[in-house]
Formats: sequence, structure tokens, C-alpha cells
Amino acid sequence: MNINAARLQHFFEVSSGIGKIGETGMCRPAHSQLEKKMFEHARGWMESAGLTVRIDSFGNLIGRLQGKNPDAPILMTGSHLDTQPYGGRFDGIAGVLCAIEAVCSIAEKGIVPEASIDVIAFADEESWRFNKGLFGSRGILGKLEEGELQRADKDGITREQALIDFGCDITKFKEDEYAPGSIRCFIELHIEQGPVLDKSNKPIGIVSGIAGPLLLSLKLNGMAGHAGSVPMPLRKDALLGAAKVVVAVNEIASQFTPAPTVGTVGTLNVFPSSRNIIPEAVSMTMEFRDIDMERRDSCEQQLKTAIDEIAQTHGLHYELTVDTDIKSSYCADWIKDTIRVSCEELGLEAPELVSGPFHDALVMSEACDFGMIFVRCKDGISHNPLEYASYEDLALGCEVLYKTVLKIIG
Amino acid sequence: MNINAARLQHFFEVSSGIGKIGETGMCRPAHSQLEKKMFEHARGWMESAGLTVRIDSFGNLIGRLQGKNPDAPILMTGSHLDTQPYGGRFDGIAGVLCAIEAVCSIAEKGIVPEASIDVIAFADEESWRFNKGLFGSRGILGKLEEGELQRADKDGITREQALIDFGCDITKFKEDEYAPGSIRCFIELHIEQGPVLDKSNKPIGIVSGIAGPLLLSLKLNGMAGHAGSVPMPLRKDALLGAAKVVVAVNEIASQFTPAPTVGTVGTLNVFPSSRNIIPEAVSMTMEFRDIDMERRDSCEQQLKTAIDEIAQTHGLHYELTVDTDIKSSYCADWIKDTIRVSCEELGLEAPELVSGPFHDALVMSEACDFGMIFVRCKDGISHNPLEYASYEDLALGCEVLYKTVLKIIG
Repeated sequence: MNINAARLQHFFEVSSGIGKIGETGMCRPAHSQLEKKMFEHARGWMESAGLTVRIDSFGNLIGRLQGKNPDAPILMTGSHLDTQPYGGRFDGIAGVLCAIEAVCSIAEKGIVPEASIDVIAFADEESWRFNKGLFGSRGILGKLEEGELQRADKDGITREQALIDFGCDITKFKEDEYAPGSIRCFIELHIEQGPVLDKSNKPIGIVSGIAGPLLLSLKLNGMAGHAGSVPMPLRKDALLGAAKVVVAVNEIASQFTPAPTVGTVGTLNVFPSSRNIIPEAVSMTMEFRDIDMERRDSCEQQLKTAIDEIAQTHGLHYELTVDTDIKSSYCADWIKDTIRVSCEELGLEAPELVSGPFHDALVMSEACDFGMIFVRCKDGISHNPLEYASYEDLALGCEVLYKTVLKIIG
Repeated sequence: MNINAARLQHFFEVSSGIGKIGETGMCRPAHSQLEKKMFEHARGWMESAGLTVRIDSFGNLIGRLQGKNPDAPILMTGSHLDTQPYGGRFDGIAGVLCAIEAVCSIAEKGIVPEASIDVIAFADEESWRFNKGLFGSRGILGKLEEGELQRADKDGITREQALIDFGCDITKFKEDEYAPGSIRCFIELHIEQGPVLDKSNKPIGIVSGIAGPLLLSLKLNGMAGHAGSVPMPLRKDALLGAAKVVVAVNEIASQFTPAPTVGTVGTLNVFPSSRNIIPEAVSMTMEFRDIDMERRDSCEQQLKTAIDEIAQTHGLHYELTVDTDIKSSYCADWIKDTIRVSCEELGLEAPELVSGPFHDALVMSEACDFGMIFVRCKDGISHNPLEYASYEDLALGCEVLYKTVLKIIG
């Protein structure tokens, strides 16, 4: 092994204590003081190996290993250190900690790569705090949208305020963008978050592409009334309409089984939320993901028709908004080949598979070629405190990343 | 008019300012400082007319007009001064303010009734703060249940703490109960909260009975997972199950239309509530109400079957609890007759109608005969800031109450 597996394990052990919930759960929100604390540890580890580290104005943590040619397009590798509110110890974190370990190992061996290598922990990949994520990766590519700094979290704190509280200078966005052509490629290591590798008994997989997420928000408005007195046929019950939308999302996505199409309603809030009041309003988030854009478009159209019919039936007004719409994207063949050769050198047979979950790599694919290394994840459980990947598998993934980076840019 | 309509209007104007939300909405939670402030005003009004006023250990406000015979069973009249979280200015409030005005008018005219009259504002009729209500009326009849003081509101404050903060001595419950036989009858004035009087153009109605409420809570537990990776057939989505229960409650209650059977899901909370996580758990409240107990029992049985099937289909565990189960109850004929004569003296033709909403009178019916006077409510809208009753109608209702009380106990 070229990488230091014991040190990598130490990185995970430190990380798992910052934002811990219960025995194995994590809650480390984007732009939070917990994330800041995590960044300070990661900064220390990278600086010890001689990397130059900064937190940019988007709240990304970036460590650079300077290459021989400072003008050559760089290699970027990393993932994110924020977690779901009820998440695990590996999602995102694995990609950053393995990138730190791999690149620090390169630096410590005295290897000076041809071009610079940036290790990055992207800000707010997870999306839940402001119901819009992939913030850091969109930020460095100049892809933030108008008004999105004004999105507020459940406590009413805007993204703008959260960034300022984090210590970011939000007037410096432009300076922190990466110029077109300045990134040669992006490599992200991630736990699979699905059951394919675990079921086929393989520690490492090579990603062929990432499903495109369509993230929607829906507000339904009816009419509050006394639950004891308004006759059933006269009701305009927003929760009844919302319930039928939840069922519709499920039926629409399920019709394509066994295709990897998925559809989910993850949040649903009722107003005024009293057991004696017929619900006046519901706000909810919905999503579809697919590698096949034609199928996903069909889901979207069917859902729109369903919502319209449900709203008419129950006398509801509605507002449907698209929060995120990213096309699916395929990994570069040359990077997949490089990863495969690295795996073969380690005696690993690495299957190719599609990623249902999206990653910062999906955003980066709009600026450069990208590749992803998947690490086996027990029972495919993720976004759950039970999420688990073994330190042995993570060390193998880290070694594959080390080899891949050096093959590309060494 | 025997009552003072201008003073009654003043009472409403003062009340409408305490816990005001928006232009015409109210949020005055049970045992809150806002309710305390309201109680202090009401105490002052009653004391000015010579009533003896106290707040008991359940958080009820009680004003007594002493009768000639202190041992004779009393007449009790009133309702509640707490409101829904997104409620109106008349629900409950009308019954207390009209009782204060009617009994103060009796006192001010120097009339000493044969038996004492208690004007009461019952604590926490509304049920939403601790998901269990009718607290004050159950309290004075010794019908509190084990452990219910430990129920917590959404901020984690228990009923016990809320009562202590309100100034109640919770060791004095026993002393504050009314002995069996000590209450001759209970009269409650209330806005209709339904459209019958408004549609038939009648300001006042006579209640024939109150539908029996069955209030249930349901917890569904599935399995959290990444919304992008868990294939549709492998999901244990608690929100999908909950949505099907919402639809079932509606279908079960609707099958009896045009019977007055109603079924409602008023609250539904999702955990962990992230747009990227398949919901692991849902807690929700459900209810059925009917004047016909056989029909309501049928609803309950059908719902239990539906929940069981839904849980099996989606791999969910569930816990179903009964929070409140009160049988429907009919008003005493002799009280209805007395109210009718009082109406006739005012030239009012008062229709008889069933109350879908429950009231403290439903609890009181277990201890004594009861009657209810309904006041017209615009478009039947209630539990909504748009709730409206005219001061003219309220004054008429108050005058009917004045006459009825004197006929019974003068």
C-alpha cells in the first residue's frame, strides 16, 4: 500500500465524533460551526503534508499540492464534509478523507506532480438545509442562481447569513470561480449508497454515470375548517390532496421497475397542524431520478397531470417549482480505464455501475471530464445512521485513488 | 333586552386583542400567559358585578353568583377562552363572554337566584397543545387519566409544567372536583361552527345532541434510505404508508354521506424530513365523529383493517393509540324546552340541530343534564381566522341564555 491505512482510519475516527448523533449517526449541517470544526482538522492534516489550504467564499475547503507547471490544468479530487440531518459517517466524508490521505501520501513521498492537485471539500452538497444543494461545486463554476442566497433554513437563517457567520466574504464569489479549462478532470471517491457491490461481494466499483435529479417543491392551498362540522363533500383538505400526490409520485416511479427510476417525497409540512382543523396548506418536496432522461421527463409530465387533477378534485390551489434539474451524465472512458488499471494492479475486479444518488461530480461534469470510484456500503444503506463501510474497503478505495491520480498527473 | 349588548361587544373587542394573529385570527394557547391575561380581564368584569372569582387547580376560571340556598345543586354555564392555533374570535369565547354578561346582568338587577350560578371558562378545551383536551371539564369531574400530566407540547413543556407556570397548585386537584349531584345542569352557548343556521337564516339554534369524537394517534415506522439509490420495490417508506392512511380516513368517512359522519387527519409529521431521505417515521393524528355510535364504530373497524393492510404492504411497523373516545350525547328535553320558550319570548324560531364539534358540554353530560344554545356562524366557517358571528346575533344568544338561566334557577 502506498497510502497510510492507519492514518486514514484515524481521520474517520476524528470525523465521526464531530456532529455525532446516537451511536453511529451524524448531523453536520452545511456552513455550521460543526463543519467549521471538521474543516480545521482537515486543514491541519493537509498543511502537515505541505499543501496550501484555504476556505473560499462559497465555504469550500481547498488544499493545493503545487505541481511543476502552475499554469497546467489541475486535477481536482474530493467530495463533501457536510452530512444529512440523520445521516452516516461515510457519505461524502469518505471522498474527502481518502483524497486527503492519497494526496498527502503523494506529497510526503516527495513526488511533485506535473500539474497541481486540488483536494476539495465542497460546501453544502446535501441540499437539505436550504432545500437546494451542490452549492460549493456550482459556486466555483459560476452556476449559482439569482436569489438563492436568500433561501432560508427552518430557523429562518438565510444562506447569505450562514455564509457570513461561517466567515465567508460573499463579495468574493467571482474571484473564487475556476476559469473554463483550468480543471483537467475531477475524480470523486464515494460510498456506493446502494446494494450492488455488497451483493456481488466486490469492495470497489467504477461508476459509469450519474442519474439526473429533478427536485421539485409543491405548495397546496385549501381551506381550514372545523374537523367536526364541515361535511365531507364540502372540504378543501390540503393534506388529502398532498397524500394523493405522495401516492402518485410512488406509482409513477414504480411503473418502470426494474429500471433504476426512483421517485420520493422526503418532506411534507402541514399548516396549521392542529388535530381539530382541516389542513389549510401543505408544502412538500418531491423528486425523480433516472439515468434515462426520456423516462424521467415522462415521470415529470405524469406528475404534473396528476397534481392538476388532484387539485381540481379537491378544490386546491397549487404552486409547483423546480429547485434542481440536472441531466444525467456519463463518466469519461479514459478515466474509467485508468481506474480499472489501478484496480487490476491491486488484484481487484471492479464492476461498472450507475450512481442513483447525485454527487458534486455531476456538477463538475459540466466543466471537465470526471470519474468516480465507489466503495462497498453494507446492505446498500445510506442517509441513515446505520450506513457502514469497512476501513479495509476504504483503504483499498484510497489506494485506487492514489494510483489513479498519479497515472493521470504524476 | 335584559342584557347589556354594548358591554358584551366591549368584552369581545377586548378578547379579540389578546392573542391576535393577522387581522381577525386568534392564537391563545391553553395555560398560556395570553390566556392568563384574558382571565384577568374576565375576573375583573365578574368581580365588578359582585361575583366571587377563582382560578382552580386545573386552570379553570370560575365566577360564582351566590344563591339563596348554598347547598342546592348549582347551575353552571360557560365554555372556554383558549383558542385554536389558527382560530377565530368566537369559538368558545362566545360562551364565556355571554355567560359573564348574562349572569352579571342578573346580579346587577339585584336578583338572588335560588341556587348558586357558576360561570366557567374551562381550561384547554381545544386539545391541540397536548393533543388531548377537554382538560378543565374532565378535571372538575375527576376524569383525568393516569400519566396525562406528562404529555408534552411541541416545545417539550409538559402539562404539569404548564399548569405550574400558570400558577396552579397541582396537589389540589381532589379539592377542586365537584361532588356528584352538586351540579344541577350545564348550559353552554357556542357558535354553530357549521352552516345550518346561516343557510336557514336563523340567528339562534337549539342543540339536540353532540357527536361523539374518537381521536386517534398513529406512529408508522419504516426504514430511512437514500432517495436516489434504494430501488422502489425495496423501500419501507413511512410517508407513503401515511399518505394511504390519509386517503383511507377520507374514504371511510365519506362512504356515509349525506350522514354527518366526518373523518379528518389534522397533523402529520415526517422524520427525518430531508428531501434526499426516504421517510423513516411518521406520526399523525386522526379522528372520526358521529352522532350515531354504530356508524362511528364501523369507521374505526374499517380504519384498523386499512392500517394493518397498508403496514403489511409497505413493511411498516405501527402503533395506534386512542387519545379520546367519548360517546355522543343528547341534550335534556326539559332544557331544550326551556331554551325554546326563551326564544319564543324573543320572537325567535330556533331550529334544532346536532353539533358535529364536541364541547365541554359533552363531558359535563356525564355528570348532569345539559343544554346548548347555538349562535349563527357566517358560512359555517370555524377553526379559521375567517370565523364570524355578528354582535347582534351574539346579543340575542346572550339574552336567550339570560332568560333560560332565570327560568331554571331564578
